Amino acid sequence: MNNLHLNSENKSFGGKLGFYSHPSTTCNGEMRFAIYQPPQAAEKPVPVLYFLSGLTCTEENFMIKAGAQYWAAKYGMILVAPDTSPRNTGIPGEDDEWDIGTGAGFYVDATKKPWQSHYQMYTYITQELPTVINSNFPTLPDQQSIFGHSMGGHGALICALRNPQKYKSVSAFAPIAAPMICDWGQTIFSLYLGDNQENWQAYDASQLIQKLGYHSSILIDQGTADQFLTNQLLPEEFIQACEKVNQPLNFRYQPEYDHSYYFIASFIADHIHHHAIALGLA
Amino acid sequence: MNNLHLNSENKSFGGKLGFYSHPSTTCNGEMRFAIYQPPQAAEKPVPVLYFLSGLTCTEENFMIKAGAQYWAAKYGMILVAPDTSPRNTGIPGEDDEWDIGTGAGFYVDATKKPWQSHYQMYTYITQELPTVINSNFPTLPDQQSIFGHSMGGHGALICALRNPQKYKSVSAFAPIAAPMICDWGQTIFSLYLGDNQENWQAYDASQLIQKLGYHSSILIDQGTADQFLTNQLLPEEFIQACEKVNQPLNFRYQPEYDHSYYFIASFIADHIHHHAIALGLA
Repeated sequence: MNNLHLNSENKSFGGKLGFYSHPSTTCNGEMRFAIYQPPQAAEKPVPVLYFLSGLTCTEENFMIKAGAQYWAAKYGMILVAPDTSPRNTGIPGEDDEWDIGTGAGFYVDATKKPWQSHYQMYTYITQELPTVINSNFPTLPDQQSIFGHSMGGHGALICALRNPQKYKSVSAFAPIAAPMICDWGQTIFSLYLGDNQENWQAYDASQLIQKLGYHSSILIDQGTADQFLTNQLLPEEFIQACEKVNQPLNFRYQPEYDHSYYFIASFIADHIHHHAIALGLA
Repeated sequence: MNNLHLNSENKSFGGKLGFYSHPSTTCNGEMRFAIYQPPQAAEKPVPVLYFLSGLTCTEENFMIKAGAQYWAAKYGMILVAPDTSPRNTGIPGEDDEWDIGTGAGFYVDATKKPWQSHYQMYTYITQELPTVINSNFPTLPDQQSIFGHSMGGHGALICALRNPQKYKSVSAFAPIAAPMICDWGQTIFSLYLGDNQENWQAYDASQLIQKLGYHSSILIDQGTADQFLTNQLLPEEFIQACEKVNQPLNFRYQPEYDHSYYFIASFIADHIHHHAIALGLA
């Protein structure tokens, strides 16, 4: 009914990992995602944990590199990893830079030309994609959580903070924690949202947490050897914002870890456990 | 002393994952490997488990995709994943086919021109590489085991069967179990070893097991949905050969699993446990 196309499928940890594409009305073109269904999903509906990836990633990276399926099979949760942007939209320059356009949707709804025609990732992630997933897979629609890495850590935070009723829990690996004041965020927000910085605040976790708070503790891991730590990620902004409003935050600096999926894999068990508790699975 | 060059390093599960290159006298040029040192290796020497990868792989695939570091850190063993062939040798045609030359060393010592000048993977894996590893990293040189996938499953089996004193245990995922009678093996053996099939037997696990046996049970997992199962891998040959000589073999057909690293990751815990027991770690 949603015109899902299964591009490939692999058996994995007793469950199945599928790579799908589908026509997205929100993004006005084809979108792709990966979904891991644990063995428990063959018997009954299960909770869903969404993972948002970082710059340059596709729907594949997380499923190949994070080692998450082992834990999803253990607890009995579906994992969904969407692509990080629309692709092949025809927008001029979409493929010119690795941190603009393709692979760099930044999880916002663009309001500026030429991006607004397709780059509606915020609505896609929070509304259309869950509808597609819940309509086609054995999910418990009221039991979903979200996490992500880097640009996707930013994405997970803004999606959860703005939709606390939709997401039981949120966590992040090395998120872009204050996009309004880092180069990546300023560049993208100018292009996608225009120069009025009031319109940026709805997509900045360090701003949002002060206005909205969140109903449960937020888990964040950050490597101290991360090459983007002090120039792009700026987690101290988010830590201070949480302190200002007494938001529970379990922020862990992880000594010597970098920005790679080797870092994510090293702490994936803790993150999935965090969500499993919120989803009633642990 | 061995002229090791560290190309990159990532902290991983409390230990460190290094990607190295070094001049190989055996292969007459630069060779590459990845090594994961678990946290225990910072305190004392630990056993080493070698993983041989399949066609087209480099030293990276296993470390990125298999999810093995979690278990290596748990048990306290070093993991070593060498590249699958020499590269950039200048041998005409080395890069023309994905299953010949580069990425397809097949773990044999070539005797035929033009391959013999560099393609000495059997001696590299069983002699030079362990010497390099033991000279430069905190290993217990008498405590090593070996496993692999596909072409590397074949490699692990022949290395272990011919050197039972060097390898405490062996296991394989979807090995090329009877290379003398499959297309991949026949093509490569003709090119690297010449047409006299007597010279092929030293590199065929189904032949070797009947002559040499092995001192402990061999673990093999094989997906039933593996696209290469009936035309290239031919595990039944190896099963029958083991039966003939009463060789203990724990051969498991895994329903619906394919030939990918998703299959490997699904059963990596069992394989590392198999080796951990033989290495005195479990």
